[in-house]
Amino acid sequence: MAVKIKDIAQRLNISVGTVSKGLNGASDISYEISQQILDTAIEMGYKPKKMLKDDNKKLCIFITNMDYKSKNDFGYDIVLGFKTHAIRENWKVYIEEVNHSFQKQNNYDKYMLYKGYRGAFFVGFALDDIWLQNLSKTSTPTVLLDNYIPKNFNVSYVGTDNFEAFDILVDYLVSIGHKKIGFFSANLDSVVAKERYEAFLKAMKNNDLEIDNNLISFGHYSIDSAKYHIPKIIEHKPTAILCGSDLMAYGAIKVCQDIGLNVPEDISILGFDDIDLCKKSNPTITTIKQNRLEIGKCAYISLEGIMRNVCINKTTLRPKLVKRKSVNKIIR
Amino acid sequence: MAVKIKDIAQRLNISVGTVSKGLNGASDISYEISQQILDTAIEMGYKPKKMLKDDNKKLCIFITNMDYKSKNDFGYDIVLGFKTHAIRENWKVYIEEVNHSFQKQNNYDKYMLYKGYRGAFFVGFALDDIWLQNLSKTSTPTVLLDNYIPKNFNVSYVGTDNFEAFDILVDYLVSIGHKKIGFFSANLDSVVAKERYEAFLKAMKNNDLEIDNNLISFGHYSIDSAKYHIPKIIEHKPTAILCGSDLMAYGAIKVCQDIGLNVPEDISILGFDDIDLCKKSNPTITTIKQNRLEIGKCAYISLEGIMRNVCINKTTLRPKLVKRKSVNKIIR
Repeated sequence: MAVKIKDIAQRLNISVGTVSKGLNGASDISYEISQQILDTAIEMGYKPKKMLKDDNKKLCIFITNMDYKSKNDFGYDIVLGFKTHAIRENWKVYIEEVNHSFQKQNNYDKYMLYKGYRGAFFVGFALDDIWLQNLSKTSTPTVLLDNYIPKNFNVSYVGTDNFEAFDILVDYLVSIGHKKIGFFSANLDSVVAKERYEAFLKAMKNNDLEIDNNLISFGHYSIDSAKYHIPKIIEHKPTAILCGSDLMAYGAIKVCQDIGLNVPEDISILGFDDIDLCKKSNPTITTIKQNRLEIGKCAYISLEGIMRNVCINKTTLRPKLVKRKSVNKIIR
Repeated sequence: MAVKIKDIAQRLNISVGTVSKGLNGASDISYEISQQILDTAIEMGYKPKKMLKDDNKKLCIFITNMDYKSKNDFGYDIVLGFKTHAIRENWKVYIEEVNHSFQKQNNYDKYMLYKGYRGAFFVGFALDDIWLQNLSKTSTPTVLLDNYIPKNFNVSYVGTDNFEAFDILVDYLVSIGHKKIGFFSANLDSVVAKERYEAFLKAMKNNDLEIDNNLISFGHYSIDSAKYHIPKIIEHKPTAILCGSDLMAYGAIKVCQDIGLNVPEDISILGFDDIDLCKKSNPTITTIKQNRLEIGKCAYISLEGIMRNVCINKTTLRPKLVKRKSVNKIIR
């Protein structure tokens, strides 16, 4: 029998009116009570009338700060990998773009409940996204790309192993004679940017290489960001620069060429992600392949696990070095 | 059509005799060539006659250093979780105990090929196990409990998140007034022992607590190990001791009681694993639950992923604090 508002009221020993307020997000009850009402509603399997009419097997991919609609976009394969796996098991998958103001206006758990989504995959979120900040207490099965929420059994992380990636990159550069290695990546306002920086430092240390702060600069995941940062790094004469994304590497190559340096003869430039641009760049870009189809698949597998109470905390995928033309051996 | 020895010979441009030697482990060809022959045989789907007769869907759980046959054994639920999931998808699951001399006598890839196992789950292996050492080059899909092999796409790690576990343990102790926290765990000859130690240090640091080496000691994952180590730690008056396993915690409680200390009134003792013994101990033991059924399930999910070329590197599960009677609040 379908759970009704009065059943939730009875369980919590509060009035039907309060439950109704909680479910509707009225502002005259406390956040804690509202959250408790939602948790209980979800736990008891309460479905709003709107949801009863819908098919019950619905998942949502929430995207922000990331393009995904055309084949060359970074998010395209991630979405595709998730969808193909979910659809095979009879889930309907919806995609919603959620900006800051949308997140501010809608409580995440409440939104999921009313939309009838049973779980979600977050793609492209940064630390300043409000929904991300609220996940430490969510009762909704949620998988995050490249973001980590401690201690909540309903949330899981999926991403490429950044530590192994930078081990591979630095080991490779060292094996062909590089020692003065620069690092140009994004500001440390996301979990993934922080982790890649930490991973770079660790890999340098593992190879007994000196970390020179003059060779390190933080910008944005964009082509243009290189214009400001790369000249500063180049002044201090690195033989190679590891970039936090392929867009940054592409920009870095352009800036080097504008200054009159040949890539890879004068300086080696490496990317991260393996987007299509790597093959179109001149020279083509040596990079770390993130298998984005697999990331999407793993996100679905983790989400499915959480929904069956298998509390997967983190799933990381193997990074793969893709060698192209933007790297040269150092001749001594 | 079934792949024959001569097909492998043709592909590698070597003689049928050499391929046969490689497959049979003859000692008069080099390890590299033998490995290349095996890799090619596996890649081409070669099946020895023996294997053709068998059902083709076979997986193996290799166990060493761990009991698993009775319900109270640590390995029981791990094996069960793996088996129930694998059997559901029509795999036959075999279990083999492999000691050091067996590992020395049998090349892992060769053994898998001849037994017709398509993938394996390693349980209980330590750094001195030969098969573990050889995994960096294996072409056989393999999942490891609590052990990590870098950079090989065919190998995956599964285990409980030790860093989150020690965050939870230390945060909990700090929240009830403990500051002088001891650590009694196993020798650092396994990946999991190393990681738990690192996790302890990190959690102490996160809480701005002093790390006192007098309060740290390394023994074995056994009850008896406490006899030697706990008196040394106790001399330096910790208010709580975090143990690397429940057996160690059980032993620690006994030693404290023999010395005349009351647990938890005089000292708090915490375990790790949540085996049945925790409930039988007096006092019952506060510990971290490793959900061993889920570990087994995740191991199967990862193995299945690798066999489908989804290169899952690591899967970690959420640890859960189980509060019992072996911990007291510090009254100030």
